[in-house]
Amino acid sequence: MPNDEEAIRKLVDNWLAASKKNDIDTMLDLLAEDVIFMVPGKEPFGKKEFAAVRQEMKDIKMEGKSDIQEVKVLGDWAWMRNFLRVTFTSPQRSTTVHSGYILTILRKNPDGNWVIARDANLLTPESGT
Amino acid sequence: MPNDEEAIRKLVDNWLAASKKNDIDTMLDLLAEDVIFMVPGKEPFGKKEFAAVRQEMKDIKMEGKSDIQEVKVLGDWAWMRNFLRVTFTSPQRSTTVHSGYILTILRKNPDGNWVIARDANLLTPESGT
Repeated sequence: MPNDEEAIRKLVDNWLAASKKNDIDTMLDLLAEDVIFMVPGKEPFGKKEFAAVRQEMKDIKMEGKSDIQEVKVLGDWAWMRNFLRVTFTSPQRSTTVHSGYILTILRKNPDGNWVIARDANLLTPESGT
Repeated sequence: MPNDEEAIRKLVDNWLAASKKNDIDTMLDLLAEDVIFMVPGKEPFGKKEFAAVRQEMKDIKMEGKSDIQEVKVLGDWAWMRNFLRVTFTSPQRSTTVHSGYILTILRKNPDGNWVIARDANLLTPESGT
């Protein structure tokens, strides 16, 4: 159990590091094939749409900081509640900050690696940014 | 497992029926003591705050329809992805409609009853309502 929780916390670190470098391939490796992302006001989307959106945003620098609130491991599944604050910097160097909570369902693959399976992202723009 | 999934689907029905009648006591019975609700742009809140908000909204009629997308039972825990559309009718009979997806973590109490433990609510106002 503690090892699984450690592995999940490491996954979050790896995700944020890959996001900062816009390393889409590494990000895709951290997603289940059938991942479903949910954000307010849009239809849920999967891995292919995620990759397309990140590709479109490749000139925007994203730097995220997470504050994991809780992780609950349930065998080969887990859920996690996280607080995330992401700074977006455009090529013109203007910045906006989005922050909020995320509820994530994770799954352990047969190879022992944890991946993101479902993700409800409640981030909103911080006022004044 | 099918019985647990049935019980969770029944919980959703009971929740919507109680919400329609503004039967706060029944709604509170369907929540874990340590429930955490998450909505965009607000700090997460628990059972007491939920009860207070519902009490304040007691003159607003809420009618919700759900379309459960998936339920995954994991022993005494489960997660569910749901689409919800809620019509709010004010005492002056003006209506607004909010819709969107919800990701919910549920837990089976020692008495065998399922309750809502974590809830990420992505509902937004429908345009034109």
